[in-house]
Amino acid sequence: MTDTTDPRLRSFIPVSPESHFPIQNLPFGVFVPRVGGPPRAGVAIGDQILDLSELERRGLLDVQGHTGCHKSLFDQPSLNAFMACGRRVWRIVRERLSLLLRDDEPLLRDDAHLRRAALVPMDEAEMLLPVEIGDYTDFYSSREHATNVGAMFRGPQNALMPNWLHLPVAYHGRASSVVVSGTNLHRPNGQTMADNAPAPVFGPSRSVDFELEMGMVIGPGNALGEPIAVERARDHIFGLALVNDWSARDIQRWEYVPLGPFLAKSFGTSISPWIVTLDALEPFRTAGPSQDPQPLPYLRCDREEAYDVHLEVLLQGAGMKEPVRICRSNLRHLYWNLCQQVAHHTSNGCNLRTGDLLATGTISGPEPDSRGCLLELTTGGRAPLALPTGAQRAFLEDGDRVTITGWCQADGYRVGFGEVTGTLLPAKSK
Amino acid sequence: MTDTTDPRLRSFIPVSPESHFPIQNLPFGVFVPRVGGPPRAGVAIGDQILDLSELERRGLLDVQGHTGCHKSLFDQPSLNAFMACGRRVWRIVRERLSLLLRDDEPLLRDDAHLRRAALVPMDEAEMLLPVEIGDYTDFYSSREHATNVGAMFRGPQNALMPNWLHLPVAYHGRASSVVVSGTNLHRPNGQTMADNAPAPVFGPSRSVDFELEMGMVIGPGNALGEPIAVERARDHIFGLALVNDWSARDIQRWEYVPLGPFLAKSFGTSISPWIVTLDALEPFRTAGPSQDPQPLPYLRCDREEAYDVHLEVLLQGAGMKEPVRICRSNLRHLYWNLCQQVAHHTSNGCNLRTGDLLATGTISGPEPDSRGCLLELTTGGRAPLALPTGAQRAFLEDGDRVTITGWCQADGYRVGFGEVTGTLLPAKSK
Repeated sequence: MTDTTDPRLRSFIPVSPESHFPIQNLPFGVFVPRVGGPPRAGVAIGDQILDLSELERRGLLDVQGHTGCHKSLFDQPSLNAFMACGRRVWRIVRERLSLLLRDDEPLLRDDAHLRRAALVPMDEAEMLLPVEIGDYTDFYSSREHATNVGAMFRGPQNALMPNWLHLPVAYHGRASSVVVSGTNLHRPNGQTMADNAPAPVFGPSRSVDFELEMGMVIGPGNALGEPIAVERARDHIFGLALVNDWSARDIQRWEYVPLGPFLAKSFGTSISPWIVTLDALEPFRTAGPSQDPQPLPYLRCDREEAYDVHLEVLLQGAGMKEPVRICRSNLRHLYWNLCQQVAHHTSNGCNLRTGDLLATGTISGPEPDSRGCLLELTTGGRAPLALPTGAQRAFLEDGDRVTITGWCQADGYRVGFGEVTGTLLPAKSK
Repeated sequence: MTDTTDPRLRSFIPVSPESHFPIQNLPFGVFVPRVGGPPRAGVAIGDQILDLSELERRGLLDVQGHTGCHKSLFDQPSLNAFMACGRRVWRIVRERLSLLLRDDEPLLRDDAHLRRAALVPMDEAEMLLPVEIGDYTDFYSSREHATNVGAMFRGPQNALMPNWLHLPVAYHGRASSVVVSGTNLHRPNGQTMADNAPAPVFGPSRSVDFELEMGMVIGPGNALGEPIAVERARDHIFGLALVNDWSARDIQRWEYVPLGPFLAKSFGTSISPWIVTLDALEPFRTAGPSQDPQPLPYLRCDREEAYDVHLEVLLQGAGMKEPVRICRSNLRHLYWNLCQQVAHHTSNGCNLRTGDLLATGTISGPEPDSRGCLLELTTGGRAPLALPTGAQRAFLEDGDRVTITGWCQADGYRVGFGEVTGTLLPAKSK
């Protein structure tokens, strides 16, 4: 079996050291060529997309023999059909793609006709939402984030709720408004209540925020009533993407007691178009924070299950020539790991389905500049960020473009997630 | 145009006065005949199901001409294709079905061959989940329920949260675990924390409850960023069903602060198989509770938008010969009406999609026996219900079957919802 993460592998397609998409990555996405045609699945390699539907049509992937299914896996508007197949098939495809793209493999390299048919430059394609999302769940698994936010609302002594260290707190999010990177969103209107005001008002939110998150997408699901044990959770995780969980803090503050965030979040959640598989992330698996108190047995996880993914948030205001980095964090700070999230989510028998999105919640770290949202970075808007242009930001302004990017740094190359970006447009009239 | 709700209409199919399915109702569902075959849409009439795929195949529904779409609407595993068409098409089909089933219309009545092909006795069919649900939202719109529950947790002076009278509070529910009536559910395992205990434990919930609710399913949706005005909301509502939002109170109490209920609800939500359209409910539209303070303009609703639906909950323990009625309530008690719920849900630009389920939350009324869940009926388990068998119930016991039924009472007939039923099975081993 080939080690598809071997650092010595090189593709015949040129990949710069800063590219997120070397041959060791091979993330999956869905695209349409700008010249037209139906949506189809592809993998990113350098600045190119390898069209998997084209390879499949030509019999170059040899997956039908392994799936026993003669339906196309890649001539599809989402990755769901492929994701449902499970890790054995994912690995067969990954190994095949790794081989096809290697610099010492002539099949694709030396066939100009095939290359023209199967390789599409990224700038000649539009990326679509890669997954048909059934349910979207958002966890709240960063201890630093929960502590920072809790301290603002309840003081530093009561920052963490009593349940927080015992279970990965989460809530159901809105699946319909999950959009792919590049989709711009209008500032939401909503009901808010100012301090000491006699009554609430309805109008544009005045504290729109981003949240730096990542999310896993589910491959094979589980049947209702059949929990997924923590040690089996990896088999159900296809891969990870970047997530920006846009939030309207003033709407949230007024609506969220007692049933949690609702309209403060459901106006839009953005995800990056490329799903990086756990197989590609394996070399970057590492230890997460130690957990004290020890989790209950159903959440106990002996293996290292954190990932060393460097994360950044960039902000570019309407008048700014270039984006400014306003946050640096890392996925490894996450207190509750992905396997614990899956085990907890299904511990009551709840069924996950192929395509479900489980996001981490805001990923903050221990440093002041590793706070993953403006609510934290500006202490609730009271200490605005000073931007290099002289402007300030308490919360987002109309025209602000927020970009989240993230990658694993290897020796001489990066296994990256690309980016998730979007611009906040002005509110529509009420 | 025929008035399909005319009380004088009679079908050639016998319908008893207690039946929920007279010719004035014509609710839509999805079924498979027990003899086999693919799922397809039908309408209930008396104790029969009229197979819409069969009528469509024979060209007896004449919908393709109106939809401009040549895809089948009814030879489908869900009602979504039909629901997406909008009220004009719904009415064309309803009027056509009303005509075909009338006692003075010979086409179906006198064609024994057609009757055999298109009518299936209910006891020879299995009902399926009628709708492919995108997102499931659960409101909290009964003032009596919110007051009763709030008083238990915070005392009678602070029973309603400050936001409650200003907006229809809601949270996102779990769509994957919505199941059709008749599906039995296992008592969920989960993490709970007893009063004064040193640490939480994981095991079977000890306070599983039902919640008496109804839910609307969405027909045509709205685009992201384009709210639905309250006066247009009806156009987006296909119809209503009965909902039992099973709840594990001990899991809920420990997990729900600050992000709301999660695993306490996601182990299962049951809905009735027949969707009763707003057109069928029109004669039973009535005034809801007066709203004070007056809602903000985006929630202001001049028309009467409540529905007079009598609701009952029946409980049958494993050893009981017959079910006992433990609750009587009415949908018209709901403080926030369906149109206000839709307008609020989309006020931030959130998109609804065809098939989305928006449930009311527990529908309690002003009387002691109109409390819509055991949490209220037993004051948190402290005042158990005495059953006629001599048994008591604080919360549900293994083997308890909970059935919710509901109907609109007309003069001599009922426009009903059938029932949603399910049995609580023992917890699976951890």
